[in-house]
Amino acid sequence: MIFNNLERKRIILASNSPRRKQLLNQLGVKFEVITQPDINEDFPEDMIPEKAAIYLAEHKASQFDAEIDENTIVITADTIVVYKEKILNKPINFDHAQEMLNMLSGEKHTVITGVCLKSKENLVSFYSKTDVYFKKLDKIETDYYIYNFKPFDKAGAYGIQEWIGLACITGIEGSYFNVMGLPVDMLYEYLKKIE
Amino acid sequence: MIFNNLERKRIILASNSPRRKQLLNQLGVKFEVITQPDINEDFPEDMIPEKAAIYLAEHKASQFDAEIDENTIVITADTIVVYKEKILNKPINFDHAQEMLNMLSGEKHTVITGVCLKSKENLVSFYSKTDVYFKKLDKIETDYYIYNFKPFDKAGAYGIQEWIGLACITGIEGSYFNVMGLPVDMLYEYLKKIE
Repeated sequence: MIFNNLERKRIILASNSPRRKQLLNQLGVKFEVITQPDINEDFPEDMIPEKAAIYLAEHKASQFDAEIDENTIVITADTIVVYKEKILNKPINFDHAQEMLNMLSGEKHTVITGVCLKSKENLVSFYSKTDVYFKKLDKIETDYYIYNFKPFDKAGAYGIQEWIGLACITGIEGSYFNVMGLPVDMLYEYLKKIE
Repeated sequence: MIFNNLERKRIILASNSPRRKQLLNQLGVKFEVITQPDINEDFPEDMIPEKAAIYLAEHKASQFDAEIDENTIVITADTIVVYKEKILNKPINFDHAQEMLNMLSGEKHTVITGVCLKSKENLVSFYSKTDVYFKKLDKIETDYYIYNFKPFDKAGAYGIQEWIGLACITGIEGSYFNVMGLPVDMLYEYLKKIE
């Protein structure tokens, strides 16, 4: 079996994202989901995106310090979308989503997910980076997508596994699952090493 | 609406693949699946993989010549996995799958899907190409995957959307959905152009 080493561990995925839950599940990890409301997602302004993704993942993990006993491992993640050094957060409404997608239209952008694994005695953090290429989008496409898929819980205003990802993303360089929100290939390596 | 132009068309997806069916469905196309048994999948030995993928897609489409009326469009596809100029077909048994995965272990390979759109008066064919990178696989991993996922219907002995794709593929260059079996971004462009 894969993950024999985790049999006596309590694994907590601290994320609201159904995509992360699905991916960790598909990876073959037994875990529970516990989230904490209203985590501050600010980070120092001069921080580069790679560091910010890790900083936010570690910050989310720090909320669990009181809960972590000898056998517990908390997994947190933060996904950041970067276009020309500008970080795109979750869109606040239809027009904001429209604006973000118009920015990404016909261009390359980068998705970075920071992940933190925290136990009583250890903290490991890492990130994965994927370049994503959108074709030129027209208004019919962005309207259709935003209206039907309401991507307001998604940084950059899109989900690669949704209609717009199928129809309008022409290619990526790096891990696909990282764009979905969890770099499972790297996470797998770290989880296998846990004793 | 997307695909207003297809409203009066009868679209046939001529493929047994549940992944292709799922992707075309997610793209927002209304279609039916009709397949023909025992299609000969041979192609001339000296044909390069890109041409072979298109040749096989066109060959599959030619089986429908009798069925195609003014309003019908048949979509066929063929996915080819290439490692160092060698084409990997579907594995015939456990050992064969093992052998293929050991070949891909720690290496880059290429997935090419040829697609054919055939109507009474037109035939359009195209292909998409994606490079895929596997980490070094060990026997526990290939045994676990083949035993649990039985990839005997998959060229190259793996599905990128299955456990091994999550845990052991470290990155791709190109379209993810092309590796799943249908380059939906390109197909979308061609379908939109149909009058």
